[in-house]
Amino acid sequence: MRIALAQLNYIVGDFELNTHKITEAIAQAKQNDAELIIFSELSVCGNMPHDLLTRPYFINKCLESINTIATHCNGIAAIVGSPSCNPNPTGKALYNSAFFLKNGKIDSIHNKSLLATYDILNEHRYFEPSDSLQAVTLNGKTIAITIGEDIWDTLQADGRKLYSKPPMQELVTQTPELIVNIAAIPFVQGKIDQRVSVYKNNVKQYGIPLISVNQVGGNTNIIFDGRSLAINSNGTVAKMLNIFEEDICYVDSNDLEANATSISIEKEDTIALIHDALVLGIKDYFCKMGFTKATLGLSGGIDSAVTIALAQKALGSENIRVLLLPSQYSSEHGVSEAVELADNLNIQYDIISINSVFNSFRSSLANIFEGQPENLTEENIQARTRGVMLMALSNKFGHLVLNTSNKSEAAVGYGTLYGDMCGALAVLGDVYKTQVFELARYINRSEEIIPTNTITKPPSAELRPDQKDSDSLPDYEILDQILYYYLEENKSKEEIVKMGFNAQQVSKIIRLVKISEHKRYQTAPVLRISSKAFGIGRLLPLVAKT
Amino acid sequence: MRIALAQLNYIVGDFELNTHKITEAIAQAKQNDAELIIFSELSVCGNMPHDLLTRPYFINKCLESINTIATHCNGIAAIVGSPSCNPNPTGKALYNSAFFLKNGKIDSIHNKSLLATYDILNEHRYFEPSDSLQAVTLNGKTIAITIGEDIWDTLQADGRKLYSKPPMQELVTQTPELIVNIAAIPFVQGKIDQRVSVYKNNVKQYGIPLISVNQVGGNTNIIFDGRSLAINSNGTVAKMLNIFEEDICYVDSNDLEANATSISIEKEDTIALIHDALVLGIKDYFCKMGFTKATLGLSGGIDSAVTIALAQKALGSENIRVLLLPSQYSSEHGVSEAVELADNLNIQYDIISINSVFNSFRSSLANIFEGQPENLTEENIQARTRGVMLMALSNKFGHLVLNTSNKSEAAVGYGTLYGDMCGALAVLGDVYKTQVFELARYINRSEEIIPTNTITKPPSAELRPDQKDSDSLPDYEILDQILYYYLEENKSKEEIVKMGFNAQQVSKIIRLVKISEHKRYQTAPVLRISSKAFGIGRLLPLVAKT
Repeated sequence: MRIALAQLNYIVGDFELNTHKITEAIAQAKQNDAELIIFSELSVCGNMPHDLLTRPYFINKCLESINTIATHCNGIAAIVGSPSCNPNPTGKALYNSAFFLKNGKIDSIHNKSLLATYDILNEHRYFEPSDSLQAVTLNGKTIAITIGEDIWDTLQADGRKLYSKPPMQELVTQTPELIVNIAAIPFVQGKIDQRVSVYKNNVKQYGIPLISVNQVGGNTNIIFDGRSLAINSNGTVAKMLNIFEEDICYVDSNDLEANATSISIEKEDTIALIHDALVLGIKDYFCKMGFTKATLGLSGGIDSAVTIALAQKALGSENIRVLLLPSQYSSEHGVSEAVELADNLNIQYDIISINSVFNSFRSSLANIFEGQPENLTEENIQARTRGVMLMALSNKFGHLVLNTSNKSEAAVGYGTLYGDMCGALAVLGDVYKTQVFELARYINRSEEIIPTNTITKPPSAELRPDQKDSDSLPDYEILDQILYYYLEENKSKEEIVKMGFNAQQVSKIIRLVKISEHKRYQTAPVLRISSKAFGIGRLLPLVAKT
Repeated sequence: MRIALAQLNYIVGDFELNTHKITEAIAQAKQNDAELIIFSELSVCGNMPHDLLTRPYFINKCLESINTIATHCNGIAAIVGSPSCNPNPTGKALYNSAFFLKNGKIDSIHNKSLLATYDILNEHRYFEPSDSLQAVTLNGKTIAITIGEDIWDTLQADGRKLYSKPPMQELVTQTPELIVNIAAIPFVQGKIDQRVSVYKNNVKQYGIPLISVNQVGGNTNIIFDGRSLAINSNGTVAKMLNIFEEDICYVDSNDLEANATSISIEKEDTIALIHDALVLGIKDYFCKMGFTKATLGLSGGIDSAVTIALAQKALGSENIRVLLLPSQYSSEHGVSEAVELADNLNIQYDIISINSVFNSFRSSLANIFEGQPENLTEENIQARTRGVMLMALSNKFGHLVLNTSNKSEAAVGYGTLYGDMCGALAVLGDVYKTQVFELARYINRSEEIIPTNTITKPPSAELRPDQKDSDSLPDYEILDQILYYYLEENKSKEEIVKMGFNAQQVSKIIRLVKISEHKRYQTAPVLRISSKAFGIGRLLPLVAKT
């Protein structure tokens, strides 16, 4: 049976666009003699809709779209993701479903059993788990339809399994010849091996081939990476669709046999993938919001340099206009490197000194600050003056401000709320400082775009004379490792110290993370590239003693 | 059996404090000859701990606390809320439990069955539902122990029941003589009748009396109101504990009979309760964070007037210092009313004109803004200049900035990000503008604290000459109703129009709500007093077409 895998980029709630994409793909698949076409999880409404799922009109639109799509399913069957209504009077009002469309109508509805409710996923907030499982038959072939987490019944880091009843255990008794999984899996650096293993393990456990179709594209903070795939019944990979772009491929299910041809999955080039993920994240944030233009403050530092290079790839030089906002503490090399970088990228820039505004703030506040020593306050005023300038450009000309804070800074609160922490989208908010350096070198891989000195000089916020990041923070190599274990591996202070890190340093860093929760609470959405990004996937009480 | 109801105010993660409060209450209850003392849901760690529950050391601390508390339970039994570990190798690692402590040790553990996962509640994120139910026996009396939602199997607005298996249906077969419910129910205006009904309905359905102990106190955005209660077996209210404060009361379970004495629940004075809730919310936010001092920008408008009056109640005049930040567009009456208000409250204030900084921004930006007409940009620069001034005071002297935006403004995006939307805590962020006026009149109920003209003059942001809120927004009476139906009742545009509102106005308002999601994403925690506040209980994708 010839099957089309339709890996598409949806806009949440844009039913017209999503339905159009789906029906176009169906038409193309019919022309290519496919008997079945498969779309990703919640494809009619786009993933992740969050609380839009609680609005009745939103669900009606989903079901209208499904009915429209069904009318296109003559001579071809389709599996399409959509919420569906729970007909039972108890439990959550919705299921997360796969609609099996055939002969111009809805043939059957298959509901998700295992509802992911951790990190950025909130499925129990909206959905009731499936209470019945039924394989479908198409042209004599029996197919087990599963949704996302349904086949992700994997061992957790703590040695537990999240679910006691994986639906495949029941579905396999109906002797399916193929597992279909419709999914919406966000990009996480370095995890493709794990993902492929999950699929392979299902194939090995149940002895039948598997096809998984994943969503692609950025939606606010989440970047879906695509890489839909087909696994032969011997557990080898028959096909993998493109990463970070729409792709439609055809697979003959009869070819997914033990002696089938297979491809090898290349080892991930982590930095290259992070680069491409962030470019897609920026691009889709803008185009799906209906914005085209971006701005940021170019300081001569590495964070703004990498951010502008990524933004230029995503939006084009002509859509970016930046400000250089030097103060009396800014180095000459910083300004000249910023100019060089803007020139290298062919991006319009203006230089506006913040001294006049800064001095005006100081004079205005002189009375109430009388007798007080200079401190962080004056540094913050500079950062906030820059924030106001960038927002003014944004307001006047419609450029969205890109936030340039990296994950290491954001973690320890090394940044000024409403100052350098302002912006519509935090491009590097999930990228550790050491990875920002790697990104810079990657961006420069074939020519010098970011001035070498920007990469090699010691990082500084340049908010007071001769300031260096290393004055108040440990080396980023150390900091980033400690942060990784604390934030992503959920290790305790004691466990991290046992790994060989300096106890005082670990205590200080963890303390800094804790006391800056309130800052991160008020920042822009962060493009997520790790298993634990700041934002909606990390929910901590601001008022707590821990 | 004499039972103590211990309604206490916990700090999340402050195990020392929480354990101390609990053991002190046990000692007091023993002195008062109680045989059983009951504490609220997750009392050892405080509610709501959010992702702290995913940290192993946090769970260890909970269990250590339980063991410590158990050693105090000689001659008295206790029911204490705490997470407990799921011994099964599948499912979430934790239960939300009630520990029954007796004879100096843990006698039994009772797990929550119905896990609330909607609005601000995320219980499925952390907990596995109970898989066994067992009543306990104490001094010959059988008691059914339930936790929060377990007895809230109520009909939803959409006619559905959220749960198919309320645990009391099983527990009642064990012929308990009393239902105990340990809870952590946040304050929501106007809902006390509904809450009491839920308890009464359980009593009527199962024919046995009920005691419920609720947490009290503010934790970040959530204000737990207390009002723990005991219901007689005939469904009348035997006792209700104080609202918004710690309270320990004693009830004899033998008195909770059909012919028992009962009290009547007074009709809520909604505005008085909102006032007290917000005062508690401010007070606990500060004291639990270890801060004492607050600042804000006093404009002569009603929002900042009400906010400062609430803050003064919560923190005392001596802990508040405010700035009056007039511009060329500020009215003279605004400044004089602000001064009058600060004097009435005996609060230190300084007047700093923002003209100099504003002009400095304009000169600095003159080149890049050449030929552009003045617009919102210049208004935003004024608001952001004020934000920088307030944050500077905060940074220099340690005053937390209170945000003064009301819910109506926040809903339609009528506010400047990083300007008047700055601050550590949004005091009025869940209070509609019409309610802000009611609060002002309530604050003035016995003497004029807020100048009458502040209340009676037409609201204006004073960011351009002769600006009025009503220039760009419908009357607040209309606006607030439309917002209420849209935000809180989840009505569609069509449904709201059918109620008799102007279709164009409804469309405009809903559009404004949608296009300002990105602003609310970056604002301070909002003290929650309604069933749908902005913040973690309302999760919408920023990138969406809806």
